[in-house]
Amino acid sequence: MKPSVTIVLVETSHPGNIGATMRAMETMDILQLHLINPKHYPHPDIEAMASNALRNLGNVKVSTNFDEAIRDAEVVFVTSARDRNISLPQMSARECGTYCADNPGKKIAIIFGPERTGLTNEHMLKGNFHVFIPTSKDYQSLNLAMAVQIICYEINMALLRQSNQNKDNKNMESLATFSEVEKMHQHMEEALIKLDFFHNDDPKKLLLKLRRLFNRSSLSKPEVNILRGIFNSIERHIG
Amino acid sequence: MKPSVTIVLVETSHPGNIGATMRAMETMDILQLHLINPKHYPHPDIEAMASNALRNLGNVKVSTNFDEAIRDAEVVFVTSARDRNISLPQMSARECGTYCADNPGKKIAIIFGPERTGLTNEHMLKGNFHVFIPTSKDYQSLNLAMAVQIICYEINMALLRQSNQNKDNKNMESLATFSEVEKMHQHMEEALIKLDFFHNDDPKKLLLKLRRLFNRSSLSKPEVNILRGIFNSIERHIG
Repeated sequence: MKPSVTIVLVETSHPGNIGATMRAMETMDILQLHLINPKHYPHPDIEAMASNALRNLGNVKVSTNFDEAIRDAEVVFVTSARDRNISLPQMSARECGTYCADNPGKKIAIIFGPERTGLTNEHMLKGNFHVFIPTSKDYQSLNLAMAVQIICYEINMALLRQSNQNKDNKNMESLATFSEVEKMHQHMEEALIKLDFFHNDDPKKLLLKLRRLFNRSSLSKPEVNILRGIFNSIERHIG
Repeated sequence: MKPSVTIVLVETSHPGNIGATMRAMETMDILQLHLINPKHYPHPDIEAMASNALRNLGNVKVSTNFDEAIRDAEVVFVTSARDRNISLPQMSARECGTYCADNPGKKIAIIFGPERTGLTNEHMLKGNFHVFIPTSKDYQSLNLAMAVQIICYEINMALLRQSNQNKDNKNMESLATFSEVEKMHQHMEEALIKLDFFHNDDPKKLLLKLRRLFNRSSLSKPEVNILRGIFNSIERHIG
């Protein structure tokens, strides 16, 4: 299932940017575009720059009201340069792509402001997340359609990664559950106490280090069974 | 140290695409542009679309010969759609970004063909790697400057990831060497034999599974010491 992503452009000045945005979206299979108060629409530059991105050319919504455009969205991403000081949780373009791929049921709107000024603070604060694209510190002036291209590219990359992972998971041993891993840690602690492993060391500190080690490798069910088999052997010998 | 990356555009038709490429490069701090036989140069559309990307506007090379442009490059990436059937090793844009970040000493050229036709087979085969950008299957027509934007973005992302990793590594315990990990595995095998852990099971198979588990978590030196401490305790008790 694909995520339901709408790209929203607010008060775009240059119709060429609208066409270039359609083309950028179409290359990444994102097909819902909503324009709020574009300066020129329709306009021959839109079609010229859209370069046969027919699914987007045939699918655009145009409206005059910001709130109306995001009314049905369940999650709203607002975009601007990173250093914009807005009290919203921040996400990079890559994290935004992952979020979209991980939430196929959600209606998501990603909003881009006017070319010269970006979104107003008032519009920014209607978002749930502030998305930024990491750029040069010396020159941050990404073209509007380029910014849309990178966000749509990251959504497509996240979807591709996800479908590859699904293929991998079919070939993988199933992961142990949280409670199976917890029982393994308890069992390990009991066995190490019987072994008199801790001597004068702090047991908590050593157990925490072992916990970190095993957490990093995401244990499978058969692996938990092997480890518990080792602890059983220890208990049998010392018992 | 930053990688030495040159973007090479071959026989670009639209001067606006050259300007948009300069702007795209500048946002990601990539500042070496080489044009081979541009249809129009100089041209007012270049400056208009470059939008104050002054470091690139002041730094462009123009030449008439493909081979001359890549003469000094140590690694040449040629770009085209993925399904182009060329007998070169393929890399995605993301892999290309990682390659550039991992090879700061190398002179790298990344070559983009004319807008309508892309690179000729003859030019493609002068590359070391064929780079593609994953796109929609239904519409693959990325604009030239958009393709440059994504590649430069991936290089910048790889450099950012690398500098964050360097920070993390300073805070991390140092990793165990290959031979330290091998000695740990031998010690584990000896201890498990003393424990009579293998019964009728195949020791090789179980040891291989344990090896996979520990390999996944990249053991640090202190972790290897804790594990060997456990094996010492086992041997002391059973000895």
